[in-house]
Amino acid sequence: VRFGADGPIVEAARGATILDAARAAGFFIDSLCGGDGHCGKCRVVVREGNVSGGAAAPLTPEEIAQGFALACLARIEDDALIDIPERSLLREPAPHSGDLRVSRGAGFADEGAVAELDPLVRRLSLRVATPTLENNAADFDRLETAARAALPPNAAIRADLDVLRALPAALRLSDGAVSVTVAWSEGSYRILEIAPAEAVASNLAVALDVGTTTLAAHLVDLTTGATLAAALRYNGQAAYGADVIRRIIWCDSENGGLERLQGITAADVNAMIEDMCEKAGHPREEITAIAAAGNTTMIHLLLGVTPRWIRREPYTGAMRQPPPVRASGVGLAIHPAGLLYCLPSVSGFVGADITAGVMACGLDVGGAVRMLVDIGTNGEIVIGNKDWMVAASASAGPAFEGAGNRDGMRATAGAIDHVGGLAADGALRFTAIGGAPPVGFCGTAYVDLLAELLRAAVMDKAGKFNAAAGSDRLRENSDGTPEFVVVRAGESGAERDLAITRDDVANLMRAKAAIYAAIKVLLRSVGLRFDDIEEVLVAGAFGAFLDMPNAVSIGLLPDLPAARLRFAGNTSLQGAKMAALSVGHYNRARRIADKMTYFELSTDPNFMDEFAAACFFPHTHIEEFPSVRSGRGASGVLSRQDNVKCKMRNEKPRMRAHKA
Amino acid sequence: VRFGADGPIVEAARGATILDAARAAGFFIDSLCGGDGHCGKCRVVVREGNVSGGAAAPLTPEEIAQGFALACLARIEDDALIDIPERSLLREPAPHSGDLRVSRGAGFADEGAVAELDPLVRRLSLRVATPTLENNAADFDRLETAARAALPPNAAIRADLDVLRALPAALRLSDGAVSVTVAWSEGSYRILEIAPAEAVASNLAVALDVGTTTLAAHLVDLTTGATLAAALRYNGQAAYGADVIRRIIWCDSENGGLERLQGITAADVNAMIEDMCEKAGHPREEITAIAAAGNTTMIHLLLGVTPRWIRREPYTGAMRQPPPVRASGVGLAIHPAGLLYCLPSVSGFVGADITAGVMACGLDVGGAVRMLVDIGTNGEIVIGNKDWMVAASASAGPAFEGAGNRDGMRATAGAIDHVGGLAADGALRFTAIGGAPPVGFCGTAYVDLLAELLRAAVMDKAGKFNAAAGSDRLRENSDGTPEFVVVRAGESGAERDLAITRDDVANLMRAKAAIYAAIKVLLRSVGLRFDDIEEVLVAGAFGAFLDMPNAVSIGLLPDLPAARLRFAGNTSLQGAKMAALSVGHYNRARRIADKMTYFELSTDPNFMDEFAAACFFPHTHIEEFPSVRSGRGASGVLSRQDNVKCKMRNEKPRMRAHKA
Repeated sequence: VRFGADGPIVEAARGATILDAARAAGFFIDSLCGGDGHCGKCRVVVREGNVSGGAAAPLTPEEIAQGFALACLARIEDDALIDIPERSLLREPAPHSGDLRVSRGAGFADEGAVAELDPLVRRLSLRVATPTLENNAADFDRLETAARAALPPNAAIRADLDVLRALPAALRLSDGAVSVTVAWSEGSYRILEIAPAEAVASNLAVALDVGTTTLAAHLVDLTTGATLAAALRYNGQAAYGADVIRRIIWCDSENGGLERLQGITAADVNAMIEDMCEKAGHPREEITAIAAAGNTTMIHLLLGVTPRWIRREPYTGAMRQPPPVRASGVGLAIHPAGLLYCLPSVSGFVGADITAGVMACGLDVGGAVRMLVDIGTNGEIVIGNKDWMVAASASAGPAFEGAGNRDGMRATAGAIDHVGGLAADGALRFTAIGGAPPVGFCGTAYVDLLAELLRAAVMDKAGKFNAAAGSDRLRENSDGTPEFVVVRAGESGAERDLAITRDDVANLMRAKAAIYAAIKVLLRSVGLRFDDIEEVLVAGAFGAFLDMPNAVSIGLLPDLPAARLRFAGNTSLQGAKMAALSVGHYNRARRIADKMTYFELSTDPNFMDEFAAACFFPHTHIEEFPSVRSGRGASGVLSRQDNVKCKMRNEKPRMRAHKA
Repeated sequence: VRFGADGPIVEAARGATILDAARAAGFFIDSLCGGDGHCGKCRVVVREGNVSGGAAAPLTPEEIAQGFALACLARIEDDALIDIPERSLLREPAPHSGDLRVSRGAGFADEGAVAELDPLVRRLSLRVATPTLENNAADFDRLETAARAALPPNAAIRADLDVLRALPAALRLSDGAVSVTVAWSEGSYRILEIAPAEAVASNLAVALDVGTTTLAAHLVDLTTGATLAAALRYNGQAAYGADVIRRIIWCDSENGGLERLQGITAADVNAMIEDMCEKAGHPREEITAIAAAGNTTMIHLLLGVTPRWIRREPYTGAMRQPPPVRASGVGLAIHPAGLLYCLPSVSGFVGADITAGVMACGLDVGGAVRMLVDIGTNGEIVIGNKDWMVAASASAGPAFEGAGNRDGMRATAGAIDHVGGLAADGALRFTAIGGAPPVGFCGTAYVDLLAELLRAAVMDKAGKFNAAAGSDRLRENSDGTPEFVVVRAGESGAERDLAITRDDVANLMRAKAAIYAAIKVLLRSVGLRFDDIEEVLVAGAFGAFLDMPNAVSIGLLPDLPAARLRFAGNTSLQGAKMAALSVGHYNRARRIADKMTYFELSTDPNFMDEFAAACFFPHTHIEEFPSVRSGRGASGVLSRQDNVKCKMRNEKPRMRAHKA
């Protein structure tokens, strides 16, 4: 199979999908549905050769006639020449979710700083007593005495057989002056390595957020706390499904599927590590630990543990707190004895990313009741303080991640991320990531669009387009569905109009309703009102650029004063970094996970009632949104809160103005 | 190379020693000196072919003329036919050191019984809750809940990644009814295996004593405490030296020497396991744990940790308490996830065998001060009670192990083990192991011989033969050394006279003086007198058949009333078994090792003074031996204490009478 007229030729087994063959050739084709043949993201053009089965529903008869096929369904029967359209390829992620700043100090206060360095792995420079007839304690015992003095009081120190085998020679090679690498593991420090003192190397760790869509990592110096480099990368598993459910199904349905997804993530992480090490000028063998957070399914896949039962009622994972494991044992290339520490999860759908987020936001500190909302395909919500915490996960669907909508896309180059102006001055403005001609909308753009359409009364509170508004951008598309055109074909990089359809609005309504309903149910479960919540922290890739007033005005977030709504950035990554830098925080994460009471919403009748009530903009009960009712909250168009973080972008956002 | 006219032919590298080639062919040639070419035990006859370098000092010119060569020095240059004389071969050990009784109950009180079964490894039959929406805890958490109920309170339960990977399927295969194998490891229970409940197998352990000369093992049922089978085997390392010092030197001087000795012991243990499993009718995969005791060097070699620094001042081992390790990791073939637990040692020369012995004898229980004496090449002594313990090791030399004396040998078939009658009735009597014509003396025979020679005044208290005694058995041998003939050539299986020489007496004198001096120094270090010791327990292979009154009359043991001198059998094996059967005892062993204060004698001037004073029969200060002075103690010839144990032998000892 050849990809592109001048492209590479790869061997593919007869019957292999074009998706797999393209992957083997190094092309990452987007696949939101994970090979189910209904998202239509993976369209390719078969120029020559024999391919079967790719002419499926998302493609129009015209497209099929032009040779378009779905790469996930099309199977290779013979030599073929395939073209991959630009928009079918996964692009580099924009740095929405991971702050790429590096620091010289002990981290920023807002991204995983710790009051005191007490890293998971330490390199101790020890002077082990030379044995004498008066003190002829065994080698390990003398080493232990020296190490104890360099470690927190009462720390137990353990050595495996390989270390004991190396110990006698190591101690005598340098007359007792040794560098000992110890790692916190299950309540004691375990010796990873003993080297002569002169051989002292840096002691680095990787903080890792394994997102379903995007991986983010920081390279940190465990001796100083400094962040030396950062990396961001799409999760290569995306080719097998956009969300965790599709990944689990794929994993289950294929022989060796689990090993494949595990291997993909290991390769992704290794690539990020290589990238960061190159930037920072350190060999990867100086990395002695990886602290990882992520949702429960991602952590299972990272470790090669089947997530199969997470998707089936009653949604149980294999474990909440994985033990530290040799990184090399799961294919991660750092120091050969280095460890992978995964933070603990709470349940199948409240993962280590949430535990890490709670820690990063300090929800577990102080008496004030606060709320963390992490919006993705699932919206996870935690409410609590130092004494108690409740958590729930609402299946919001991928609408806010750009998936499932006609012109929805990930937050990559070409995605419109903000829209404004419609109601205020009639000039429709938008920003697109990377400055390229826009090819679709990412989640934040949809939030803005809905708010704008409501304000301009182009859409009513039930989500119906209002033809009476007289907008020339309102029309019916070819299958008779009403839609609102945002970008005309001439301005679009997709060579067609970019619009939001009635069905898109319905998807987005369901998504925001699910999240709001979850907040309501959780709040009621602890007998509190919105007013009792001192602060709402919005986390995740989505949260980083979300326009808060718009999110309130469509009823996604509760109507609280602006000062009490705060972006928190990638709290999963921040929490992972805190754990890497501090045994105390690593242990604290476990206490947080243990403390959280999980509410299962999928079978909760209250949740269904609240969901139904929330299927309105902003809500059936408008009294819950006093600022929206009074119009106070509708002034936030394209204005960002002062405390927006992570503004750094590859390129400045481009602002384009159109007459509405 | 062919061994014996009808024997096997083996390939050997040019320059390989006959010792190594014979080993490869399955012949175990004795080698007390470990290939130094001076013990002369390994003599072979070169019938045909080209061999270089074996014609060394221990051989007489006549022997060399007859084709005799030392297998340890003779190197194969070309095809050769070698005969191995019967007496050069290591034979099956007599069951001196390991009691081969099997039991149906929880062990015998005297061989490692425990009050309550709390084994190192447990098989739990669990009913793990099926997850529901009300209890959708993670698989591991539900398993933990079920396991906690079956384990001691507050036990932490841990699982490694391989177990977590297997867990989801295992729980669902049998609807939560599972058999979980958990092993005590560093303060918590670690899951070794999860299997469906129907697959429940027996849960067995091996208690192992790794002696320098002999390995002894019991196969125990961890569910009932019963001893199912026993095995005894020479330590195959013996071909590389009779004592630990020679083994360490060999290990150090050869490339891969450590791995070789480790491999030999693993193979020996595996052979014993196979033997016991066959006898008991269990597959070896049902063995989930091995609890091992042995001296510090043997434990190092078992684990493949270099013992190099144990033999150099200041005599330090790599560790005192090795962690539990996968048995498969050191080549031991039991359950693939089964663990090897080594008991802790105190110092380089007070090993896990002594810790185990103290535990088996209960020295650490109660206020009475007692003493444990383990006599071998090193004589280890412990004195103490529940509050304190002191320990020392005296380098006694191998005289009491039958080595270094002209007609000395191990306690195998053909060894004279007891001698009597000389003084009492003039009829010299002896017993030989296995009933074969005698070929030499083992240690216990020398104790008896010395006592008899003293009583009959054939030897004076300084160890000089007394020609005036008029015994026709006293003579000078060919090199002019005085000797006393015990067995005439005609009665001997060695086809020559068996005698004790003046040099043998000097060796034995030094050995007994070292042990007695060590006891004295240790006693003085705690400000006590012999009278303060309520009981003396004699342990080890030697102890099992030692004639106690004779041991007192030559000054090897202190002169205490017979009721206060007790044989204790193989306390190392007993202690190992107690540890296997009980986590409490395994942990107690560590407390015992921690509590013992080790006294280094090699540089103690008091020890040298005491040694010099003890170089007399029974002692320079006869007032320390009142019963010997009064003649009371000289009546124990061939009378065994009532509490002698381990009398079972392969064959009944044969009693032969001769006129003196």
